[in-house]
Amino acid sequence: MNDILIIGIGAGDPDYLTTQAIKALNRADVFFILDKGEAKDKLIALRRLILDRYIAPGRQYRVLEATNPERERDVSNYDASIDSLNRDKQVVFEQLLGQLQEGETGAFLVWGDPSLYDSTIRILDGVIAGGRPLAYEVIPGITSVQALTARHRIPLNQIGRAVQITTGRRLREGWPQGVDSVVVMLDAQDSYRQVIDEDLHIYWGAYVGTPDEILIAGKLVEVAEQIATTRAAAREANGWIMDSYLLRRGGREA
Amino acid sequence: MNDILIIGIGAGDPDYLTTQAIKALNRADVFFILDKGEAKDKLIALRRLILDRYIAPGRQYRVLEATNPERERDVSNYDASIDSLNRDKQVVFEQLLGQLQEGETGAFLVWGDPSLYDSTIRILDGVIAGGRPLAYEVIPGITSVQALTARHRIPLNQIGRAVQITTGRRLREGWPQGVDSVVVMLDAQDSYRQVIDEDLHIYWGAYVGTPDEILIAGKLVEVAEQIATTRAAAREANGWIMDSYLLRRGGREA
Repeated sequence: MNDILIIGIGAGDPDYLTTQAIKALNRADVFFILDKGEAKDKLIALRRLILDRYIAPGRQYRVLEATNPERERDVSNYDASIDSLNRDKQVVFEQLLGQLQEGETGAFLVWGDPSLYDSTIRILDGVIAGGRPLAYEVIPGITSVQALTARHRIPLNQIGRAVQITTGRRLREGWPQGVDSVVVMLDAQDSYRQVIDEDLHIYWGAYVGTPDEILIAGKLVEVAEQIATTRAAAREANGWIMDSYLLRRGGREA
Repeated sequence: MNDILIIGIGAGDPDYLTTQAIKALNRADVFFILDKGEAKDKLIALRRLILDRYIAPGRQYRVLEATNPERERDVSNYDASIDSLNRDKQVVFEQLLGQLQEGETGAFLVWGDPSLYDSTIRILDGVIAGGRPLAYEVIPGITSVQALTARHRIPLNQIGRAVQITTGRRLREGWPQGVDSVVVMLDAQDSYRQVIDEDLHIYWGAYVGTPDEILIAGKLVEVAEQIATTRAAAREANGWIMDSYLLRRGGREA
């Protein structure tokens, strides 16, 4: 039996780490670092920096890195491709967890918060359901949504109103019903261009909380092209991009 | 001209403070503490504890307390009552800010995250629009939503799906369209009872992250009465309650 910590490390700035996360880092014997794709090197470097900065001098720990399997893009059956991906991820997790010694505590460092568009909790539940006894704890972290609103200095919601958090893929199916504030994550396709109308404002940010941060805000109809151009150039220059945005319809804060 | 810091202090556990928030606490000369209603004493005590714990020994600061005006309950025109409330709050803010000396940095300590169902950013924008020159910065904090999902060890969203964050008042108007995960905040009226059906799960928490924490999860139809009873008893015992919940329709994680 091992204890596992799923630690939210915030979305970009190492100063986003909470005291709770720092204490958790100092309880772990083994850190599992999984990343994928274009951002891999940068995000692994950030995790290494966090370990160096926050773990007490003299404390011993091991780091095990693995490549997180990626979803096959542009497949017709999204749910099936996710199921297949999660089975692949579970195999990687089981290999990593198999390297824990008796009584050791392992830790996964999760970008942002482990609750939001992250599969670590689900995969660990799958590992446990598969028969490996584990106890795990979840440590929340600052999400890219919170980093975005803090840096734009805006409320997430309008007064007394609802907010929807969704994906680029779902936004392309149309404006969500019944809400005037919509946060879009995981959007590789500039999906805001498909909902342009006169009444929408956008608050966009890339690499928020890092030295590379870019923020653009304004009426969507006026800044959509600027965002698309900036986004493409930044992705080209850095080799990867991590961005999100809030779309707001009408209202006093817009 | 004064600098103002709007610091998210997280939702309950003093360990939720980020390194960024701790650095900000140590830049402030004056802390403005505003609270209201039944929770006032408890929440002011938590803020005092945070100042005591995190501000470097020997650093001088002042604390100015004020009572945050409360909205008139059960008025027919919700928007008008909020407008009136925000004008009252602006007057209180202007009185507090008027006590800053030239060059001093002031700080507002905000429960949770300043972006989510909090009026501090809006009121400061109103103060600036009213003619007082201020520069302000927003420091994100762990919200009660994140505390809730972390303590229940659940993802906020289902895979690739949207999440809506809404109020008890809006939930009573019906289940939001197009989403299967709904977080409800600011619900003084057990509004989950009005959406009970066989397909819903609830993950409820009160005082999450504090020693008084209570968590209940299960099929809504099976645990709704238990939550209502527990909530009423806890509110009676403590004199106040702070709770929120996630409702999830169907799905593999439910």
